[in-house]
Amino acid sequence: MHICSKMRYISSSDLTKFSIQLFIAMGASDDDAKIASEVLISADLRGIDSHGVSRLVGYVNLWEAGRINMSPDVKIIRENKSTFTIDGDSGLGLVVAPMAMDIAIERTKAYGSGWGAIQNSNHFGIAGYHAMKALPHDMIGMAMTNATPFIPPTHSKQAMLGTNPISYAFPTKKEKPLVIDLATSSVARGKIEIARREGKEIPKGWIIDKNGKTSQNVDELKDGGMLTSLGSLEELGSHKGYALGSLVDIMSGVLSGANFGKWVPPFVSYLPLLPNLPGKGLGHFVGAMEVDGFRSVDEFKTSMDIWINSFKSADRVDENQSVYVPGEKEFDIEEKRKKTGIPLNIKVLEDLEKLEKKFSIKL
Amino acid sequence: MHICSKMRYISSSDLTKFSIQLFIAMGASDDDAKIASEVLISADLRGIDSHGVSRLVGYVNLWEAGRINMSPDVKIIRENKSTFTIDGDSGLGLVVAPMAMDIAIERTKAYGSGWGAIQNSNHFGIAGYHAMKALPHDMIGMAMTNATPFIPPTHSKQAMLGTNPISYAFPTKKEKPLVIDLATSSVARGKIEIARREGKEIPKGWIIDKNGKTSQNVDELKDGGMLTSLGSLEELGSHKGYALGSLVDIMSGVLSGANFGKWVPPFVSYLPLLPNLPGKGLGHFVGAMEVDGFRSVDEFKTSMDIWINSFKSADRVDENQSVYVPGEKEFDIEEKRKKTGIPLNIKVLEDLEKLEKKFSIKL
Repeated sequence: MHICSKMRYISSSDLTKFSIQLFIAMGASDDDAKIASEVLISADLRGIDSHGVSRLVGYVNLWEAGRINMSPDVKIIRENKSTFTIDGDSGLGLVVAPMAMDIAIERTKAYGSGWGAIQNSNHFGIAGYHAMKALPHDMIGMAMTNATPFIPPTHSKQAMLGTNPISYAFPTKKEKPLVIDLATSSVARGKIEIARREGKEIPKGWIIDKNGKTSQNVDELKDGGMLTSLGSLEELGSHKGYALGSLVDIMSGVLSGANFGKWVPPFVSYLPLLPNLPGKGLGHFVGAMEVDGFRSVDEFKTSMDIWINSFKSADRVDENQSVYVPGEKEFDIEEKRKKTGIPLNIKVLEDLEKLEKKFSIKL
Repeated sequence: MHICSKMRYISSSDLTKFSIQLFIAMGASDDDAKIASEVLISADLRGIDSHGVSRLVGYVNLWEAGRINMSPDVKIIRENKSTFTIDGDSGLGLVVAPMAMDIAIERTKAYGSGWGAIQNSNHFGIAGYHAMKALPHDMIGMAMTNATPFIPPTHSKQAMLGTNPISYAFPTKKEKPLVIDLATSSVARGKIEIARREGKEIPKGWIIDKNGKTSQNVDELKDGGMLTSLGSLEELGSHKGYALGSLVDIMSGVLSGANFGKWVPPFVSYLPLLPNLPGKGLGHFVGAMEVDGFRSVDEFKTSMDIWINSFKSADRVDENQSVYVPGEKEFDIEEKRKKTGIPLNIKVLEDLEKLEKKFSIKL
């Protein structure tokens, strides 16, 4: 690879091949390397750059720190017809979560719905990938995960919750599937990073400093600052975002027997684990429901199209600004990036170059 | 009843008796009147005054307008082991939703989880009541509902979503159950009403005017203004609240075959239904999961207590301001109101007095 400008477009297939080589070099099986890479590059394709190949270095660091097992023995450790719990054996969440989703889909075929709690896992990429696995089966898919603590509860200045995303995917007829995939923080770290690079002041409500006070200075994040829950400020309902983050943490962490709250293992390898962990690794919760168990698939999909079209044609505040439905922008970006390739900035390119050298692989 | 001051405390048992008489006078069976009243007064007890007896007049108006069937034939119209859909036959949501929750609990006993979509229903009171029905069975309970459109999507000035609440209830060991019950709007109408009465300016982000512009003047709500989604402003993530409201609308409305989006029947009887409705009545979605199908009940409950205590003892921004866990404040209010009775303001008291006369019943 040659880095000659601040930005380069690389095709998703080249990135996927590179990622597969990398995971194999770390000891993953061919199948695991393939699925992990597919999950990762789906984020780049959908425009969620913070969860794509830019994370590869992070995974390598965690693996070197001995926190990721590249040949895990993933097992169901408890079950009751439509529900089950999986021990991910410290595997990549990128591998463990799709396996759990496959089991949830099998259970859904047998019992109408299927729900899996996962313990002892790691970061699973974008929640949307896992939820969308249900779509070809005419099922509604769901995925959530807890994550590195970076958000305090309302009235607190201690990071107790991660950005804990929730995703739901709904099948449709002629329209693109409706895919909800949102972090329960008020803002993505990526947006803050962009503001930092551009030297801009950020809106009131995005972050708080180490004392719990609202700040518009991005540098506070390097000095003990934190993100806020969806709702941002107490007067605007931050306790609701806190409750949603709690929901994800309890379903993913407490129900599965993984860690939760302040004990969730951080993604960055240089931060140590807290002592006396209450559970194993990081936790996810995934599931599926067969549409046909509630309503005829055709009627449901037709109604979904009506839903989507009625929202897209809702009266606009500004005639020049479209009303989007959840997931629409991501499908637009995917369509574009399948043609143009995926834009990678200099920092990511440099990281990938280091990985090329380290593992003697080529992008 | 004698109204001699601006505020009066009435015991929950007296209010329940009154409400039962009222529903029976409207034609409900003794059992239905009892359960509807229990749901309604649970809101007053938990401090969610907007969803308690203050709504009785609204239910009467809807009944008089022929929109509520007081002796509904509630039926399962589709099912697949852990999932089912119910036709509420235009019954009170206060009656139909608890019936659906009972079925969800039975399905959970049989299949590990149980999920019910409900069409052709009406306003179901507080979501938390229904979710909490799962707790005595060592199950996690869930309830959501769509509601009168009053919130536009991001970039729109047309009301397409209701306050669409989501509730989850988790059993615990020594601690009070953890109950999440939140509207997907940025603020409750009740808070705006209090600001109006006190003549206060409201925070930026609570409402928008009929043109979709942010407003701090509560009177805009009477002139075509609307609430905002959780996140309040676009820069603070209102698209996430919009996505959550959409999730509730699709699960409750589209999946069940009820109405959705702008077509959801309004709670107030003087607003007409839109033409060409795509579904039947209002929709809910409820469910339950047996803890034991994921993790031993004792381990789960012990971990829930650890979760709760770790959050309550998280570092505070202000030493004098407690960090609460979801549902904690409501349990505190319930404990207090069980002793003091339920405070009713003059407007609610006058409404109840009119109902006394109209139906020849006594509070």
